[in-house]
Amino acid sequence: MIDSTALNGRVARAKVLTIDTMNPTVKNAKYAVRGPIVARAAELERELNEGMKKPFDEVIKANIGDAHAMGQQPITFFRQALAICSYPELLNDSTFPEDAKSRAYRILQSCGGNSMGSYSASQGIDSVRQDVARYIERRDGGVPSDPDNIFLTTGACDGIMTMLKLLVCGEGPTRTGIMIPIPHYPMYSATLVELAAVQVNYYLNEEKCWSVDISELKRALDEARHYCNPRALCIVNPGNPTSQVETRQCIEDVIRFAAKERLFLMADEVYQDNVYGHGCRFHSFKTVLFEMGPEYSNTMELVSFHSTSKGYMGECGFRGGYMEVINMDDEVKAELTKLLSVRLCSPVPGQALVDLVFNPPQPGEPSYDNFIKERTAILSALEEKAKLTEQVLNTVPGISCNPVQGAMFCFPRITIPEKHLSGNCTVTLCCNDSFPLWICVIPGSGFGQKEGTYHFRMTILPPIDKLQILLNKVKEFHQKFTQKYS
Amino acid sequence: MIDSTALNGRVARAKVLTIDTMNPTVKNAKYAVRGPIVARAAELERELNEGMKKPFDEVIKANIGDAHAMGQQPITFFRQALAICSYPELLNDSTFPEDAKSRAYRILQSCGGNSMGSYSASQGIDSVRQDVARYIERRDGGVPSDPDNIFLTTGACDGIMTMLKLLVCGEGPTRTGIMIPIPHYPMYSATLVELAAVQVNYYLNEEKCWSVDISELKRALDEARHYCNPRALCIVNPGNPTSQVETRQCIEDVIRFAAKERLFLMADEVYQDNVYGHGCRFHSFKTVLFEMGPEYSNTMELVSFHSTSKGYMGECGFRGGYMEVINMDDEVKAELTKLLSVRLCSPVPGQALVDLVFNPPQPGEPSYDNFIKERTAILSALEEKAKLTEQVLNTVPGISCNPVQGAMFCFPRITIPEKHLSGNCTVTLCCNDSFPLWICVIPGSGFGQKEGTYHFRMTILPPIDKLQILLNKVKEFHQKFTQKYS
Repeated sequence: MIDSTALNGRVARAKVLTIDTMNPTVKNAKYAVRGPIVARAAELERELNEGMKKPFDEVIKANIGDAHAMGQQPITFFRQALAICSYPELLNDSTFPEDAKSRAYRILQSCGGNSMGSYSASQGIDSVRQDVARYIERRDGGVPSDPDNIFLTTGACDGIMTMLKLLVCGEGPTRTGIMIPIPHYPMYSATLVELAAVQVNYYLNEEKCWSVDISELKRALDEARHYCNPRALCIVNPGNPTSQVETRQCIEDVIRFAAKERLFLMADEVYQDNVYGHGCRFHSFKTVLFEMGPEYSNTMELVSFHSTSKGYMGECGFRGGYMEVINMDDEVKAELTKLLSVRLCSPVPGQALVDLVFNPPQPGEPSYDNFIKERTAILSALEEKAKLTEQVLNTVPGISCNPVQGAMFCFPRITIPEKHLSGNCTVTLCCNDSFPLWICVIPGSGFGQKEGTYHFRMTILPPIDKLQILLNKVKEFHQKFTQKYS
Repeated sequence: MIDSTALNGRVARAKVLTIDTMNPTVKNAKYAVRGPIVARAAELERELNEGMKKPFDEVIKANIGDAHAMGQQPITFFRQALAICSYPELLNDSTFPEDAKSRAYRILQSCGGNSMGSYSASQGIDSVRQDVARYIERRDGGVPSDPDNIFLTTGACDGIMTMLKLLVCGEGPTRTGIMIPIPHYPMYSATLVELAAVQVNYYLNEEKCWSVDISELKRALDEARHYCNPRALCIVNPGNPTSQVETRQCIEDVIRFAAKERLFLMADEVYQDNVYGHGCRFHSFKTVLFEMGPEYSNTMELVSFHSTSKGYMGECGFRGGYMEVINMDDEVKAELTKLLSVRLCSPVPGQALVDLVFNPPQPGEPSYDNFIKERTAILSALEEKAKLTEQVLNTVPGISCNPVQGAMFCFPRITIPEKHLSGNCTVTLCCNDSFPLWICVIPGSGFGQKEGTYHFRMTILPPIDKLQILLNKVKEFHQKFTQKYS
């Protein structure tokens, strides 16, 4: 047998870094949201663009909450102010509104050398953190927020990963366990694998609209205590991929549970502006915590994450975000700042956007009316699409979908015919080439699901006409699929 | 004794996350570039701004390579194009030059929904990676570059941290060791501590202008093999904090050494445009590798890092960067892409800036002349400041400074009087309040130095009149300090 590594008469050096010699925790991490189905979708798109003939003309990517990619237009005010921040000469341009100029001017005044090209403080620009704190106070009916507790991050996921990193310690049965919902956004599980932390699953209650169930939290925690040291509880509200909006009562119960069981609370609240469900309202963990009185508000450790990527703005590409830490130990806070400082700072254009989003035009300012008009149009359309999605999917035999109360996804349950299940089956809905439209959604296995159940996640973001087509294709596909294997 | 944790008649809950229960690897990491001296400088600045009386009127921060913060103006063309990318209405603005519009248009065409608000592919926008590959080919005299080998990153440090993370595995005596220069930029050591990798120090040769010495590499490697598994060699060229520019011969020797010893090569080349030394020229590791023939170019694993934060543009705040991987195993490359995908993508405004920097105005285009004028002015001023710094410092008894051949720092050696050394001493140059100017530099201990030697790092970035004052103050300080303790 010829040695395939022979080269030019010499034996080539074997590689230093191979799949067998790389960091095993990285290798073991899974992240379906950008996995093989998405790669295949990109490939198909490229082939279509190159004129290759396919049985379909278009790929609709419903795999990720990427609003602008789905055609949503940016909010004019944000982009005007960002353009001025990029090129301050525009402060002299009379076609730009005064409020965009004054916001941009304030941001630039807070930048070293009045330039977005300077590093900011590692925790984020002072004035931006002040504006965020004031926004939180308005949102939470006056509950105080301290800019020193605000940390600007590179999107929310950077904040979440950083907090998880702080929390992990111990070995073997004392290794840190982190409680995460199932189904969940897989950034959590991927990060836990990378950190070699123990993932402690608690299941959301699909029968009760994917709500958090305290008895299930208790079950998961008690079991986990046999093999790890559970130290933190992650709650995603509104939910991703499950789109539930938790009730105030549920949040209070969760806080009580976390207090009793000595768990650090991590509240992923990036979808707080995306609430559509009948009778649903977003309650921040922080407000509820403070309403519960000093016994809780003076002691419970809580961190809340928010982002500029979701909501009505959907500015994913700017990677803006913040986290607010409550009752964090001062020494730990100093370590958190140090940890962020090794990466120097989060991107300054993202920080500028954070400022604009949380300090938007006010009544009487020139951009106010247009801002409200644009924001309302986007949120109304999302609400309409949330309802449409639920309605259409629930007309399909073998598909059942909880109300899309919030966020920008649905996570319908699908029944797979027995015959198909008995084969070497995964859910193939999303990667079937035989339709005039190729729909890119993510199989439920990428988020976790109860054994024996099957789901997929899709966004509700495509424009309504495309969403309608997409939903009809899903319906058609599942009907044929069910017939074929029944 | 009263229990200080008693509260409202109840015993307050102890914190879940404290300095004793947090991730020990995070706690152990050190990062002096943003350490206590920089914090103190920020505090003093704030106090001065609030009108507090001090024995000085100004703080000059020479601690970090942050050009815009030191008053350097952004390159007009980059900012015009970025403003258009932010607010595409400006494509219709006749005051913007056509080349800025066409670059911005091309970038927007490559963004989902033609918006910088969309996520990009995790590896980075296709067309940006193509432009980077073409730039590398021009730089390296035609050595081919494949866009598939380009990964866009959130500044260079994100790329470096990601590569280090991929490389780390094993336990105890088989734990991955990473060779880094001493002195070095402390992001390396902080990251290695976080990853629980073994830091393998090799000392740069201060007597030979801080160059890399192969015999020293060999010494460090042989010693390290007793207690870890050294797998990678990091070279920073031009150097930080040491500002040396390695010769072509040195680079060839390093490649030969790495090949023989089976080390993965990491070339931190972010200062490649910052070369001022007489007779010095930047040679990329990749060019030298390819000039050495297929025995090396077909097999040696190399990754090179670059950034938009340094050079003549100094756009630190945008966090733009890229890395090029050579001969990386395909499976590892797929894992690298997955690892990046968990963070979704690097900031799109930073990616846009990467495109502009590596695809700048060409002769005949409307912005060309002004671009060249601005770039030349900045690089000439840096060259002048490099020479001035070296000259002035070398006139001070007890300070000796190697030529500032490149990058944007000097790392002078200082002699500390015996009497002062015998006390409980650290180098206090940087934190002495008794001067009419407070100068913020970083003690050499933050970068590593040979035992018994003392240095500090300062940037050459302040405007020349301020730099002159700063250097004179350093001189005055060290003379008085030496007298006092002699």
